[in-house]
Amino acid sequence: MTLPESKDFSHLYSDETNARKPSPLKTCIHLFQDPNIIFLGGGLPLSDYFPWDNVSIDSPAPPFTKGIGHPISELSNDEVCKVDLKKDVKVHEGDIPLARSLQYGFSQGQPELLEFIREHNKLIHDMQYEDWDVVATAGNTNAWESTLRVFCNRGDVILAEAHSFSSCLAAAQAQGITTFPVPIDDKGIIPAKLEAILDNWTPGAPKPKLLYTIPTGQNPTGTSLADERKPEIFRIAQKHDFLIIEDAPYYFLQMDKYERDLQKRAVTRAQPRESHKDFLASLDKTFLSVDTDGRVIRLDSFSKVLAPGSRLGWITGSKKILKPFVSLHEMTIQAPAGFIQSVVSSTLHRWGQSGYLDWLQGLRHEYTLKRDCAIDALHKYIPENKAFVINPPIAGMFFTVNIDASTHPEFKTKYDSDPKKVEHALYEKVISRGVLVVPGDWFITEGDTVPPQPAASKERENPNEIFFRGTYAAVSPEKLTEGLKRLGETLHEEFNV
Amino acid sequence: MTLPESKDFSHLYSDETNARKPSPLKTCIHLFQDPNIIFLGGGLPLSDYFPWDNVSIDSPAPPFTKGIGHPISELSNDEVCKVDLKKDVKVHEGDIPLARSLQYGFSQGQPELLEFIREHNKLIHDMQYEDWDVVATAGNTNAWESTLRVFCNRGDVILAEAHSFSSCLAAAQAQGITTFPVPIDDKGIIPAKLEAILDNWTPGAPKPKLLYTIPTGQNPTGTSLADERKPEIFRIAQKHDFLIIEDAPYYFLQMDKYERDLQKRAVTRAQPRESHKDFLASLDKTFLSVDTDGRVIRLDSFSKVLAPGSRLGWITGSKKILKPFVSLHEMTIQAPAGFIQSVVSSTLHRWGQSGYLDWLQGLRHEYTLKRDCAIDALHKYIPENKAFVINPPIAGMFFTVNIDASTHPEFKTKYDSDPKKVEHALYEKVISRGVLVVPGDWFITEGDTVPPQPAASKERENPNEIFFRGTYAAVSPEKLTEGLKRLGETLHEEFNV
Repeated sequence: MTLPESKDFSHLYSDETNARKPSPLKTCIHLFQDPNIIFLGGGLPLSDYFPWDNVSIDSPAPPFTKGIGHPISELSNDEVCKVDLKKDVKVHEGDIPLARSLQYGFSQGQPELLEFIREHNKLIHDMQYEDWDVVATAGNTNAWESTLRVFCNRGDVILAEAHSFSSCLAAAQAQGITTFPVPIDDKGIIPAKLEAILDNWTPGAPKPKLLYTIPTGQNPTGTSLADERKPEIFRIAQKHDFLIIEDAPYYFLQMDKYERDLQKRAVTRAQPRESHKDFLASLDKTFLSVDTDGRVIRLDSFSKVLAPGSRLGWITGSKKILKPFVSLHEMTIQAPAGFIQSVVSSTLHRWGQSGYLDWLQGLRHEYTLKRDCAIDALHKYIPENKAFVINPPIAGMFFTVNIDASTHPEFKTKYDSDPKKVEHALYEKVISRGVLVVPGDWFITEGDTVPPQPAASKERENPNEIFFRGTYAAVSPEKLTEGLKRLGETLHEEFNV
Repeated sequence: MTLPESKDFSHLYSDETNARKPSPLKTCIHLFQDPNIIFLGGGLPLSDYFPWDNVSIDSPAPPFTKGIGHPISELSNDEVCKVDLKKDVKVHEGDIPLARSLQYGFSQGQPELLEFIREHNKLIHDMQYEDWDVVATAGNTNAWESTLRVFCNRGDVILAEAHSFSSCLAAAQAQGITTFPVPIDDKGIIPAKLEAILDNWTPGAPKPKLLYTIPTGQNPTGTSLADERKPEIFRIAQKHDFLIIEDAPYYFLQMDKYERDLQKRAVTRAQPRESHKDFLASLDKTFLSVDTDGRVIRLDSFSKVLAPGSRLGWITGSKKILKPFVSLHEMTIQAPAGFIQSVVSSTLHRWGQSGYLDWLQGLRHEYTLKRDCAIDALHKYIPENKAFVINPPIAGMFFTVNIDASTHPEFKTKYDSDPKKVEHALYEKVISRGVLVVPGDWFITEGDTVPPQPAASKERENPNEIFFRGTYAAVSPEKLTEGLKRLGETLHEEFNV
């Protein structure tokens, strides 16, 4: 199926997007490739003056049998993938010669890189329409900020999970955009509540243009949106005509389920690595896969799967909806840095699609071990008590510990029955004991300036519940265990349990 | 001298900058370095999982005796600078190990890179105050767009040269910012006219917040702002309280003067390479060097001196004025890509400040040759006639040919005495002859929605004058000559001369 012309969602564009005229210089850039034209049009330096050539880089080689984190110096020659990059020639299929990647041009991203990403996408998504494409980005932080620029004006409203990634919320706030919270439970956004909010939206108030969601390994809650809820949410997006922005940095950090019983766990973990087919089948269904309108924009990133400093990711969506992103890029980043496009393209093409899946499975293995380590430690050190709830995540980098603040002995006397005061005091106390976890309060999605909506939308199960977000990603297992021990000791002391 | 506290120019901030709250996560990031704290705060992947190590890259070595464009494969070992980059250790002073450059953090830029840039800056600018600093950027396109975000609201006004870089003008226009044109001559902005515009600004109309200027090798005119005009313009900026945005991508493409007489030229060009001291003394004075307020923001880029695809540059300004840029970066690019920061820092530290000056002098040499080639060809092929003016530039990538459109035989009959129609017809005709140069019309700075200002501000010497911009940067001397021959032939034919 090809999307009808009308599905460009241009009625949701920002004033800025509507006013953005293509640079006249872009109208002649196609002549740059015309062999009959001597192109004196653009300020392109000769690649002769680019000072770099003969790049060589080592990476581990698929199938990464010693694990993806094994030091390269300890691998045998067969286990190392040598990337050679030249200025003017392709050494290997998929290479982007430096003379091209380091030149101006290709705002959408270099063709070889995009080609790999498109093939990868086909393995992951069950696309319902044909005219989709990808645009290379400088990572999801930038891609999200650009999404706001493309669609939203000052005073517009967007939707986001009731707790969401603070930096993304702050970007909207700075632009004068109001974020309205959508209730979530341990399976993510609750469709019925989302629908009720929109069905009862204050007449005349600006309706939300976007739903910002992190469906897999949500930040900060560590939960994943249940697959069966996705078509429901998509239907609501159709009914109320908003776009779904699927922010997916943690998508490939989906883990095996946490198993507390060590004997049972040993059985599962001892299984041989599953086939690519089983691995792919095990992954969350994506919003892109249920999108029949071209109203889903998915943000992917290499930050969590290769390296954050790559500042490289991609947007997937309908060809129509990607156009204003490319126009914006032409005036901002132009394109992701050429060097990293060359390095990533060369590495991935040498690994191949299959080798890249090996890498992603290796990542899953590592994160499963680290998650297990964290949750084991939490179970060991956090008070065994209904007031403390440990949430073992199945994806992402984060776990949360929920606490009923009203069980603090000084809840009324010292903290005026204010759970936020308990949360803040605990945060400080925990730091003084030598571990940092982040208060849930930092992630609250607030929609202060929106006209009042049905009270149901902001209800909480227990108003005295607070939580802390921690990560098992950033430190070694030993440090992780020691850190959670310190957290547990502080809670024991504070809550007298 | 240190700038007084008051000189933060926060009264010129945009609503967005005023509303931008630091991410709460940034308030604890300093604890990441605290050895007593186990930091479970941020979603940082372990660098063990970054797949790259043992990077090696060749670049030519100073003093680049065979020229900066000489193929590395034809250089001897002594003439090649080998860069080795490791994941976890510094091989050489100034290296940024990949484990750090590929990780999150250092929004301002990696310390080793910034250190080199600061030292380089000290050689170039005669800073009048001490508390200046630099912020790494993803190039000047992005830095300029960010500057608009930091200071301007929809409806604000900025100033720019009457002809300026179309992409920069388009970025302002998309944001709903009006650009008011400042008259220029062959020495750049005319201070008296700038002052008259501002002295007679319509009372009550929003006054310009910024002057956007490309002082050296201006795009599209190829002219440079005369040094003696800079303090004058700075004084006017103080009087009318606007900031000066000094966009300096072509600063190091300052060339020896064009000498038409080949014998005289041979004498000059045969001189040995000048000393670093003489080279530095020959460079344009910068706006930064006359800034006693911290009201100059300079945008530098490696695009024209190393490679455009580096997507790496820097902003220089007062520490105070750089703060909102870093805050914006935290929500957009985060930081320039880590790989290229490592590569540039390693290369430049190995070359040293002195080697980098050698490189820049080599660049000057190359551009002088190419400029000479272009202007020689123009003199040879363009009609010798007062209606055609060739402007030999002393900096940048561009030359212009000005044409009195009224001398076209069909000016009245076919083109309704409209110079723009002649310009457009010539553009098409020239393409059909196999060469592309860009119509001056594409670069007109228009301030349509500003209340009418004194007519003098928009006056032109000859209203029938049109011009074309070409570049000598992008092609070989042979192609350049052939292209300009085709241009000349078209003009001969069209103008019957």
